[in-house]
Amino acid sequence: MQAVELQDRFEAVRANKLFETFVIIVIVFSALLVGAKTYDIPAPFGTITLLLDWFISFFFLTEIAIRFMAEKHKKHFFKSFWNWFDSLIVVVSLIPADNAELAVVGRLVRVFRVLRMVSFIPELRILLVSLVKALPQLGYVMLLMFIIFYIYAAIGSTLFEAINPVLWGDISISLLTLFRVMTFEDWTDVMYETMEVYPLSWAFYLSFIFFTAFAFLNMVIGIVVNVMEQENAKARMEAEEQSDEPSLSEIMQEIKALKAQLKQRERD
Amino acid sequence: MQAVELQDRFEAVRANKLFETFVIIVIVFSALLVGAKTYDIPAPFGTITLLLDWFISFFFLTEIAIRFMAEKHKKHFFKSFWNWFDSLIVVVSLIPADNAELAVVGRLVRVFRVLRMVSFIPELRILLVSLVKALPQLGYVMLLMFIIFYIYAAIGSTLFEAINPVLWGDISISLLTLFRVMTFEDWTDVMYETMEVYPLSWAFYLSFIFFTAFAFLNMVIGIVVNVMEQENAKARMEAEEQSDEPSLSEIMQEIKALKAQLKQRERD
Amino acid sequence: MQAVELQDRFEAVRANKLFETFVIIVIVFSALLVGAKTYDIPAPFGTITLLLDWFISFFFLTEIAIRFMAEKHKKHFFKSFWNWFDSLIVVVSLIPADNAELAVVGRLVRVFRVLRMVSFIPELRILLVSLVKALPQLGYVMLLMFIIFYIYAAIGSTLFEAINPVLWGDISISLLTLFRVMTFEDWTDVMYETMEVYPLSWAFYLSFIFFTAFAFLNMVIGIVVNVMEQENAKARMEAEEQSDEPSLSEIMQEIKALKAQLKQRERD
Amino acid sequence: MQAVELQDRFEAVRANKLFETFVIIVIVFSALLVGAKTYDIPAPFGTITLLLDWFISFFFLTEIAIRFMAEKHKKHFFKSFWNWFDSLIVVVSLIPADNAELAVVGRLVRVFRVLRMVSFIPELRILLVSLVKALPQLGYVMLLMFIIFYIYAAIGSTLFEAINPVLWGDISISLLTLFRVMTFEDWTDVMYETMEVYPLSWAFYLSFIFFTAFAFLNMVIGIVVNVMEQENAKARMEAEEQSDEPSLSEIMQEIKALKAQLKQRERD
Repeated sequence: MQAVELQDRFEAVRANKLFETFVIIVIVFSALLVGAKTYDIPAPFGTITLLLDWFISFFFLTEIAIRFMAEKHKKHFFKSFWNWFDSLIVVVSLIPADNAELAVVGRLVRVFRVLRMVSFIPELRILLVSLVKALPQLGYVMLLMFIIFYIYAAIGSTLFEAINPVLWGDISISLLTLFRVMTFEDWTDVMYETMEVYPLSWAFYLSFIFFTAFAFLNMVIGIVVNVMEQENAKARMEAEEQSDEPSLSEIMQEIKALKAQLKQRERD
Repeated sequence: MQAVELQDRFEAVRANKLFETFVIIVIVFSALLVGAKTYDIPAPFGTITLLLDWFISFFFLTEIAIRFMAEKHKKHFFKSFWNWFDSLIVVVSLIPADNAELAVVGRLVRVFRVLRMVSFIPELRILLVSLVKALPQLGYVMLLMFIIFYIYAAIGSTLFEAINPVLWGDISISLLTLFRVMTFEDWTDVMYETMEVYPLSWAFYLSFIFFTAFAFLNMVIGIVVNVMEQENAKARMEAEEQSDEPSLSEIMQEIKALKAQLKQRERD
Repeated sequence: MQAVELQDRFEAVRANKLFETFVIIVIVFSALLVGAKTYDIPAPFGTITLLLDWFISFFFLTEIAIRFMAEKHKKHFFKSFWNWFDSLIVVVSLIPADNAELAVVGRLVRVFRVLRMVSFIPELRILLVSLVKALPQLGYVMLLMFIIFYIYAAIGSTLFEAINPVLWGDISISLLTLFRVMTFEDWTDVMYETMEVYPLSWAFYLSFIFFTAFAFLNMVIGIVVNVMEQENAKARMEAEEQSDEPSLSEIMQEIKALKAQLKQRERD
Repeated sequence: MQAVELQDRFEAVRANKLFETFVIIVIVFSALLVGAKTYDIPAPFGTITLLLDWFISFFFLTEIAIRFMAEKHKKHFFKSFWNWFDSLIVVVSLIPADNAELAVVGRLVRVFRVLRMVSFIPELRILLVSLVKALPQLGYVMLLMFIIFYIYAAIGSTLFEAINPVLWGDISISLLTLFRVMTFEDWTDVMYETMEVYPLSWAFYLSFIFFTAFAFLNMVIGIVVNVMEQENAKARMEAEEQSDEPSLSEIMQEIKALKAQLKQRERD
């Protein structure tokens, strides 16, 4: 009996607009604290940031607890991806940041508290979900692009390793070099170097740039067409729902009824 | 009585095509003067530019005054954003440019007179308004992008500060460095430097590039879809207005009338 | 009488497929010759290229003459832009290339013979015309972009001239520097230099990049939307023409005829 | 009789899901082997990779043989592009990789085994075919772009050869330099160098960038419009097929039948 009462109370707290606003403020504040700690802070302020950090950790833990308590069926809590996401961030950022050994890890982990912003603002959540959903459609273009990269990297590290092992030493470093070429970042320096030994190696770079640019273009167009189709389908659905125009089938039915009526009279 | 007469006369001046053309000429001329002053000008010409500058200031002041006088209800004048915009530019550029202390400020402020071109040409005004109106739709993608930047900047300034404090000293300088990486500007130099200490730090840069590229692509697609929808809606509206085709509802009505007619005869 | 006969004969030559093919071959050959002359050629070949050049000049002159002769109404010849274009290229490339003083000019002018390819292949001509036609629609975005560039260049050459006169010496060199910043070409080098004197000057570059990127995006979207609209309009037109479906108006008319028939009978 | 039996058995093997999976695994494994060989491998492992390589060669040869045997009409086998493609890759990669003279060639040729992934996964095959099919539509834009490149390269190597023969020595090296300028890769360095001799040469670079950017934009828009049209046509076809709405023609027919009925009665 009392448990239900408590759960109702927690639910009321969770639904409270003021509570929500306060949570957002604390999230933003924790983000600012993360930023502030990257500056050189005089010693006394260091203690303050440490205290604030503990307060944020404690507050987030309480908030997650409230949200858990407010759930009627405790199992449902663990069915939501975002609950797992929030809990993980909160629990993991309990790693002490003042411990000398774990200091860097502790600080890094606290950075991810900023991601709670995404889980808290529904619009950002929708945006992220739609971004992630768009990925599998790109699967095969990505695979094709990786095959192109892999073949060029294998050729590159076979032919150019002796010229510059820093850029073409093995296949993984070659993949990185090719990514650099794709972003046009000082790619001519890479090319001129190999052209001194293999004067025709410009063909290697130009064909690579053409292939990747073409595949990339294809990927972008794929996404655009996809988004447009979804938008068009949505627009058509809305248009059909809102329209109080009769459908062609209804008109056809009406005409057939008329015909039957006429036939009926003829028989009379 | 006389005030109304004066107001009418000012209104006539304002509506005068010749007056408008002359204002545009003076605006263009003031832009050229701003450009000319960036060259080393021999002393005697310096005095001429000073005189021209005073003439432009005086002319713009007069023009604004005329437009204010021409307004029937003086309050309406201050309701227009562009009147405020023009007045501010004109008043602010009264700061003397020959005063030694304010010389640079005075010259900078005069540059913004070129912006009066925007307020004077309706097409540019529409363009600017539509650009500004497109911004809020991008709000959430912008926020998501900022969160990505912030997290990476916090991680970067935590891990890489010791390697190169010029690039990763604090979170604000890290944000600038990440913007540089996003524009692919010598980003491999930044990467190779940190890879010497953390050989896996390429994952930091590559994931950052993928995330921002993806979010940016999403933003662009968002704008394109939005613009297309507006265009389609406009096209549909126009098509409906121009069409003299009967609607399906009208045909249905006609058939039902026919049916009623037949029924009527049956009863007879 | 004889003049007409000659004109007919010239028209026949002009319409001859073989003649057309030969002209294209000579154009391609003249392009290759232009390319070949950029290599260091041994002396005897130099004489050959000179002879070939004279042959091409003579051939083109003859060809233009034939096309002029083939025209029934000589005035029509000068009404076509492409005739002017061809004639100009041919006449101008009569400048001797072996004259020491005019050698460079002569060689440069011969390069433009390659452009005759565009005037000769109808598809390229259409492409070029459509490119040129797309430009005026971009007029106002271009003007807005130029105003942005001009204002930033004026500010830049006022504030940064003392820091680096090579990049910011006057407004025209500043415009070039800003174009460089827009293409992200070593823009951070430009920025870091001015940030040493004005630590906040990153705002100058970032705001400039945002404004131009936004205006550029707007321009691209404008073109895309425009092209799509044209395509849609064309598709709709074709669909309407090909369709043998009756229009709604025709159906309405038919129903009304039916109604009148019924009324007629009632009266009988 | 026995031959048919064998052919059936081979067909069963080819259609076997397990066999297909195993082929993909071997392809992936051969790709990994190619990658592994780019690292410095201790001698004993070298022998293992050599053995593995022979196993893969043998396996691929067997697989192609099975696919050939499984074909009822042996001629059909050679009608498929992908069969030729696979056979070529397999046969060519029989070149011994341990032979000192052909070592590099042998290793390079083995890289292309990765491409068998494309021929084996239908989705990748479709993707590649659609990429290749999109190319001819771009033919004329490509030609126009090449003409632009050629003219600028000819001008560049005429004017700037004396300034920097490494970049502008002849027309082919100039084409490469212009491609570099188009990718914005250190293009200002190229420009500043020539501007010292020809102060107006910025116009050369800027006009080139504008032309190529414009032509490129045109190409991209061409592809987008094309893809969209195909998608729209497909969507329209599907909509027409799925729709059980009567067409306007059917309604018209129905009304005319009604009219005929009425007329018939009048005559009675």
